[in-house]
Amino acid sequence: MFPAPSPLLLTPGPVAIPQWVYEAMRQPVIPHRTAAFEAFYAILLADLRYYFQTKSVVGTMIASGTGAVSAAMYSLFRPGEQVMVVNNGKFSQRWTAEAQRLGLELLEVKKAWGEAPTAEELCALAAQQPDLRGVMLTHCETSTGACLDLEEIAFALKAQSPELLIVADSITTAGAIPFYLDAWQIDAAIASSQKALMNPAGVGCFALSAAACGRLRATHPGDYMNLYNYVQSAQLSNYPFTPPLSLLYGLAAALAYVRAEGLPAVWNRSHRAAQRFRKGVERLGGDLFPRQPSDSLSVFSLPGRDMEKLRQALEQRQLILAEGQDSLRGKVLRVSHMGLADEKAMQELLEVMQEVVG
Amino acid sequence: MFPAPSPLLLTPGPVAIPQWVYEAMRQPVIPHRTAAFEAFYAILLADLRYYFQTKSVVGTMIASGTGAVSAAMYSLFRPGEQVMVVNNGKFSQRWTAEAQRLGLELLEVKKAWGEAPTAEELCALAAQQPDLRGVMLTHCETSTGACLDLEEIAFALKAQSPELLIVADSITTAGAIPFYLDAWQIDAAIASSQKALMNPAGVGCFALSAAACGRLRATHPGDYMNLYNYVQSAQLSNYPFTPPLSLLYGLAAALAYVRAEGLPAVWNRSHRAAQRFRKGVERLGGDLFPRQPSDSLSVFSLPGRDMEKLRQALEQRQLILAEGQDSLRGKVLRVSHMGLADEKAMQELLEVMQEVVG
Repeated sequence: MFPAPSPLLLTPGPVAIPQWVYEAMRQPVIPHRTAAFEAFYAILLADLRYYFQTKSVVGTMIASGTGAVSAAMYSLFRPGEQVMVVNNGKFSQRWTAEAQRLGLELLEVKKAWGEAPTAEELCALAAQQPDLRGVMLTHCETSTGACLDLEEIAFALKAQSPELLIVADSITTAGAIPFYLDAWQIDAAIASSQKALMNPAGVGCFALSAAACGRLRATHPGDYMNLYNYVQSAQLSNYPFTPPLSLLYGLAAALAYVRAEGLPAVWNRSHRAAQRFRKGVERLGGDLFPRQPSDSLSVFSLPGRDMEKLRQALEQRQLILAEGQDSLRGKVLRVSHMGLADEKAMQELLEVMQEVVG
Repeated sequence: MFPAPSPLLLTPGPVAIPQWVYEAMRQPVIPHRTAAFEAFYAILLADLRYYFQTKSVVGTMIASGTGAVSAAMYSLFRPGEQVMVVNNGKFSQRWTAEAQRLGLELLEVKKAWGEAPTAEELCALAAQQPDLRGVMLTHCETSTGACLDLEEIAFALKAQSPELLIVADSITTAGAIPFYLDAWQIDAAIASSQKALMNPAGVGCFALSAAACGRLRATHPGDYMNLYNYVQSAQLSNYPFTPPLSLLYGLAAALAYVRAEGLPAVWNRSHRAAQRFRKGVERLGGDLFPRQPSDSLSVFSLPGRDMEKLRQALEQRQLILAEGQDSLRGKVLRVSHMGLADEKAMQELLEVMQEVVG
């Protein structure tokens, strides 16, 4: 399907970039206060609505995933408001710290790395907090691969407290595994260009429900982290600041590709890659780390093996995997199942792993 | 020197992107927690030090120019601290609003659009404010082309109050006209990839004096807008978040180019383009808007001419200029003298303008 570059980048973000994304990025830069830009951006936004499975509001900003999640938290909650944050890995830990920095009243739900919370426990905790305004959920923790049941959790929380804002870090899930903003009653979701969208890092994408849009408030038109400004501009298919046009060209190509292939086929591609890789790891006697893994990446170990040495051996064979982070450093490797990291690439990886450990 | 793309983008940011920047951007993505990334980024940072003419601390972040200036203001000043902001155009107006949003005590120095403040008036105002912590100066206002005498103003302010932090929005000046962070005693400066660096929008660049670094304080490692995190990582030639690697490849190529050509030659290229264009406008009976223009762009009008119609006529000839902003809309056009908008391009533009108005 794609011509694979060499060496093959198999890290769970940044991911390998297809040549056709680079081709798209070379389109001529045009000024953004023009009908031509607006025509281009309107199509990108329509495809982004499909990507998030929403009829509501979507937009993009120049930011890494962290920047876009921070912008969502800043835009949706006010200092003093109580927000529940599930903390079960490196990135969700970051959202608890960000909630504190923003002066939110943090209700932290701490889980061991690799564990995912259940709908029951979150509902029980939320039931005791009459002033709770929102819940921040990391759909898949890229540090561990653990995936929470976002559909079930959001359904249960909304059934109990319809006014709760459900915010999802879907950076490593949107475009890789099923994600439905409207049907699951998610109020805000964030995606990032360097994951399933197969683009360079640089663009944060967001989707907001009507309730979330109602919580945005104007600060000033140059407030970079306020999604209000991006939403106001996106309604005119325009941008509050100089847009990252070359990156948007690449992103538009990827979103059009997803729309043409269809999300079910895209999700199934990651699923098949994950299945193939995980069966292979089991055959090698290895362990998969989280009990509830996302199909977007696998976090694994081979007992009795120095995983850093394995990573280096694979790198010498032109296969680039990611090491474990923080407490998992040296204990696991992380491999993407997004984009070019498809079933065929997983088969190739497994064959090389077999040679290396055999 | 460069193969010019068609149509020729002559707006003062975003600017036309040379083909060799696109070529550089296609280099394979590598994981950033690696010696390979650090080796690459160390060279980029060394060239960025040359670009800002500093031996002090430099760094980059995923942000537009507005995002990077906001990050500098947030990182260097605390709520309640008094900061002087010169407001003489669309962008400096934004910095006054941002100072208010950040809870700073704003001492606004309001000037008419196109005017620039003098060292004397700023020193006189600063002398009355014993608690003043910093001064925010927009070196060149891209909305009007007005350039303030940053060297003289910083010299006078520092002579009067050595502990004042001088913060310069040098987005449309660094790499286009003389700028010396260390020699001029500037404490913080911001540049942006889509201006003199001839790259896509997406990367904000900053330079900080030792005094500015001393004012940074840790919040948490995931605080996206805190330059402290970027500085900590840059000291290890690394990045606090997923870096915009493809954009950094393009930026590194442009910075290496500037270093190879030498800043004096780069500045002279903009100077010659500005001189050529301005003489041509005078020959056409036109007016140049600001009294103290920067060589990075010209803001001009042709008396008795509908400037929007002129802009459209030039666009039909594949020459893209920028319209006036806010109160200058319809009254002026803005043309870049950065990067590919060199003397030769200005000659071509003047010939077409002569045809159109002749």
